[in-house]
Amino acid sequence: MNDCLSALARCRVILVGTTHPGNIGAAARAMKTMGLTQLALVAPEADTHDPVAVARASGADDVLASAQIVPTLAQALTGTVASLALTARAREWSVPPRPLRAAVQEACALAHAGADIALVFGPERSGLDNAAVQMCTQPVTVPTSAEYSSLNLAAAVQLACYEMRMAALADTPEAVPEPASPWATAEEVEGLHAHLLAAMTQCGFFDPAHPRQLPARLRRLFGRVRLEREEINILRGLLTAMGHRWKK
Amino acid sequence: MNDCLSALARCRVILVGTTHPGNIGAAARAMKTMGLTQLALVAPEADTHDPVAVARASGADDVLASAQIVPTLAQALTGTVASLALTARAREWSVPPRPLRAAVQEACALAHAGADIALVFGPERSGLDNAAVQMCTQPVTVPTSAEYSSLNLAAAVQLACYEMRMAALADTPEAVPEPASPWATAEEVEGLHAHLLAAMTQCGFFDPAHPRQLPARLRRLFGRVRLEREEINILRGLLTAMGHRWKK
Repeated sequence: MNDCLSALARCRVILVGTTHPGNIGAAARAMKTMGLTQLALVAPEADTHDPVAVARASGADDVLASAQIVPTLAQALTGTVASLALTARAREWSVPPRPLRAAVQEACALAHAGADIALVFGPERSGLDNAAVQMCTQPVTVPTSAEYSSLNLAAAVQLACYEMRMAALADTPEAVPEPASPWATAEEVEGLHAHLLAAMTQCGFFDPAHPRQLPARLRRLFGRVRLEREEINILRGLLTAMGHRWKK
Repeated sequence: MNDCLSALARCRVILVGTTHPGNIGAAARAMKTMGLTQLALVAPEADTHDPVAVARASGADDVLASAQIVPTLAQALTGTVASLALTARAREWSVPPRPLRAAVQEACALAHAGADIALVFGPERSGLDNAAVQMCTQPVTVPTSAEYSSLNLAAAVQLACYEMRMAALADTPEAVPEPASPWATAEEVEGLHAHLLAAMTQCGFFDPAHPRQLPARLRRLFGRVRLEREEINILRGLLTAMGHRWKK
């Protein structure tokens, strides 16, 4: 495993009082796509063996099968030093909620330093109750629309696990995509422009005595694109084919 | 509406060939939680009136009910200047995929500047085919686990819409260089490709019976550059001038 992803192995997902088996399966799938594997279910009202749960887990049935089932949130949180309580609204008497991204980045840094952390989600209808939110170290909100904030449970798990993965990956520089063929050199690009001007002149589209902005526009276009060598070969091949046609 | 969220009104979600009604409903819900409302379905194999779709949409049944149903991706893309094709893997001969967050930030900045943009998702089993990816301006991947990358369709919609909302909420939109003329729309770019193919065929450079990779290479080239309307006019003017020359 990539070392910067070791934080993901320290992050557990805790679902409290889930009622729909489909959401448990979908949450397992959401976790696995992001490289998280530790699932804990607190007093679930749905069964992990339910065919709907297994179907929605798709290829993540291993996460589902290894889920820990415990009676209380306190047990599920054992050993964690940070726990993010996902909640749609601010609660009286609790720490003010932080937006998901910032909270996850902070928790991920703790996991990177060797701490166990948790993402905690409440029942579908009601969300986490005040006691559960207060048992966690930080309430967290997803910045949803003010008009409609009703995130599906598995969708919320997907977003939180995605942010956790993005935070874990943050140290890795974005890979620079390899071109399909080598980039064209400056002189190859110049060769294309010379060829273009000659062809445009030959067919009467361009008058070298009155160039106006045409050469500049074409340089601007092909200058933006970072041409590959093979693309230059294609374009020049096309210009040559067109020239032969005129000579017939 | 918060002014910085006006970009969300310019972003449509396009689902191509969706087979499960539940995914259409869940996608509508995912969109609405993030403040997106324009849903287009290209040749869906599931019905938006299916009770499963309506149930999974939950309170987003308005998004579901107002979905546009069209036969082709080209129609769904009409008027857009940027379209992100969500894909799990890199394709030969297409623009290299970018990670979701960076691609969405760029597209959101365009929307902020007044352009229409799209997020495009393929069928559940196979994803978008190569032709669909090439018709969009940018392939995009979610940085999933290497061991298991199987994101549920509605989960992918949730992530993309969340990133769009986060980008729209960011204080300072990424500065987009003003184009010298307006960006070309999807149908204007399609017009250029059709014109190019006809001209290449006419001069004998291209054999439609044996296309090999030539059309894909040209789509890849012009897909990277984000053409302006006036650049399309120049290129098509040149092709027309060349065609006239042959007729003499």
